[in-house]
Amino acid sequence: MRAEKLMSEVTVESVRNALSTVKDPATERDIVSSRQLGEITVGEKELRVAVALLSPGYPMKGTLDASIRAALEPFGRTVVIDWGLSVPRKPPRQDLDRLPTVKNVLAVAAGKGGVGKSTVSSNLAMALQRLGARVGILDADIYGPSMPKMMGPPSRPCDKNASGDRIIPALHRGIPVMSVDFFVETGRAVIWRGPMIHKLLQQFLEDVEWGELDYLIIDLPPGTGDAQLSLGQLLPITGGVMVTTPQEVALLDVRKAVDMFAKLEVPLLGVIENMSHYRCPSCGHVDHIFASGGGKRLAEELELPLLGQLPIDPKVSAGGERGDPVVHSAPDSEHAKVFLELAAQVALEAAKRHATGPKRSSLLRTV
Amino acid sequence: MRAEKLMSEVTVESVRNALSTVKDPATERDIVSSRQLGEITVGEKELRVAVALLSPGYPMKGTLDASIRAALEPFGRTVVIDWGLSVPRKPPRQDLDRLPTVKNVLAVAAGKGGVGKSTVSSNLAMALQRLGARVGILDADIYGPSMPKMMGPPSRPCDKNASGDRIIPALHRGIPVMSVDFFVETGRAVIWRGPMIHKLLQQFLEDVEWGELDYLIIDLPPGTGDAQLSLGQLLPITGGVMVTTPQEVALLDVRKAVDMFAKLEVPLLGVIENMSHYRCPSCGHVDHIFASGGGKRLAEELELPLLGQLPIDPKVSAGGERGDPVVHSAPDSEHAKVFLELAAQVALEAAKRHATGPKRSSLLRTV
Repeated sequence: MRAEKLMSEVTVESVRNALSTVKDPATERDIVSSRQLGEITVGEKELRVAVALLSPGYPMKGTLDASIRAALEPFGRTVVIDWGLSVPRKPPRQDLDRLPTVKNVLAVAAGKGGVGKSTVSSNLAMALQRLGARVGILDADIYGPSMPKMMGPPSRPCDKNASGDRIIPALHRGIPVMSVDFFVETGRAVIWRGPMIHKLLQQFLEDVEWGELDYLIIDLPPGTGDAQLSLGQLLPITGGVMVTTPQEVALLDVRKAVDMFAKLEVPLLGVIENMSHYRCPSCGHVDHIFASGGGKRLAEELELPLLGQLPIDPKVSAGGERGDPVVHSAPDSEHAKVFLELAAQVALEAAKRHATGPKRSSLLRTV
Repeated sequence: MRAEKLMSEVTVESVRNALSTVKDPATERDIVSSRQLGEITVGEKELRVAVALLSPGYPMKGTLDASIRAALEPFGRTVVIDWGLSVPRKPPRQDLDRLPTVKNVLAVAAGKGGVGKSTVSSNLAMALQRLGARVGILDADIYGPSMPKMMGPPSRPCDKNASGDRIIPALHRGIPVMSVDFFVETGRAVIWRGPMIHKLLQQFLEDVEWGELDYLIIDLPPGTGDAQLSLGQLLPITGGVMVTTPQEVALLDVRKAVDMFAKLEVPLLGVIENMSHYRCPSCGHVDHIFASGGGKRLAEELELPLLGQLPIDPKVSAGGERGDPVVHSAPDSEHAKVFLELAAQVALEAAKRHATGPKRSSLLRTV
């Protein structure tokens, strides 16, 4: 009788109360106050709850699932969870809220060129899209804008809208792309002086119809020059990810780029080590062509997550050449898997920052 | 009697006359008017001639040797050639003759970072030194000055002279080195604005005791920014070599850098393809990790020599990490050999330009 009475008393409110103790392991905030809990349906034998994840490909979904089921167990009904995705919006920096339809701006940066920054940008974008997020790409690499080439021929070119006052981005594989390259004659050296960069970026930020996006990936120019500083000041960046190869020589430059992010007060979400090793396709021999362990050491030194270690692979390089990122061309390959995990990790770190505020690395704190 | 008479008539003048028909295959000028012919000693049974080569490791020395011997054959004496090296001095651009003790300034450039420009610079310098030339290094890569690290600990640090008005470069493995790095705190991002670059370079050019050098190798920053343009305008460059990886994506950036050289009116000596392939040390399998043939296609397109194709090798990368360029650490290795050939080729192209004037590529001509 008593148990039956309890059961008959199951209300939406009591379910909500029970779930208010459930914490998302990513943010360590309960799912009610963080507005992740959606509709609750109390059926005769079934409890149905809608729960929004804060990042696509959320790696701790299993833990959250178990916590919800444990919290609802006393009700004695079958629990069905409808998972959704609701990427939190970066609390805007007032001066930079120029992209009202974009929730997060992720900058892919590198201390020096040639470490695979653009390969990471293109595959990160495709991976986030595949995990269910709405993604755009802003190719701000004024020295070597390669996104349009790497993403393949557009299904729609960059154009003006009907009234001619707004810019519609190119569409590459379902992803809106804007690139410095659209404004430069192929093969021409453009010397970008400050005012030109300012004007172009202002257009990218104010005049482009990005549409609703969870993530806008910005491919930054490598290094720490004048232009990079201007870009960092003009673009409303949620967080940066730093791509590096494992070599000590490359890490020297990364530390400078980290210093620049600190000056710009942009939090770093983590470090991605690219070209971390090469496995001979013929015999399986593994070679650390560009040294090893550098990314890990750097992440430890900066107290930042090592978001991923990407192997060297001709398929990845060739995918960029062909304009078909490996996440798209070989979605079930080992490499696509690494990029998908990486994308989930990056998205998670961005979501965490919203809950906890930017965690500044020790190096950043010294500045 | 008649033959004996002829022989007794052998004079220094007649030998010189005979040699005035001998052309150096590099310059296609005769060795007398190009001042390559030195002392002539006429002995009883021996003709001894001193001949200066115009570039270290001169690849066509065998041909020149044969031509000289053929020209002297009618004298019927044993021919001994004392080979020397006399690198021609670049005809100075009046406005840029700021390095009176330096014969040639060779700029190592790249369309983007990470293609191995600095690895090429350090090994090119060491290879030219090993081939008998006097070499210095100016590390002008303001974004990532890595020469001091790549060249190993200095035997003498950079310092002022006794009276304090001149700078004595650091000495690394017998090579004088000046680097932007000496003026920057490690790990700090320095945003080089125009006037700062100007001042620093002026010091490098006017206040540094370089000593007598055949070649000053300049490691330029990658890319085509404002800073690069200033550097190119300020530095008295004999010729540039362009380092690239074989990928089409990298070549896009190279074309821009070539365009920049054209704007600066600096002749390009040729293209170096780095990371052209990888041979598995375990099974010998050859993989074109970063595509193949791009350097060759580019060189053809620009009508420039392909100066060398460097394989990917962990030893080369590790040598840079350790501060011990492979030309020094493994002088008899396959890779050192490739660098030595490359250095000879670069020096030859520089010498050729002096004889024939800058040959502008077709792309350059269109600008």
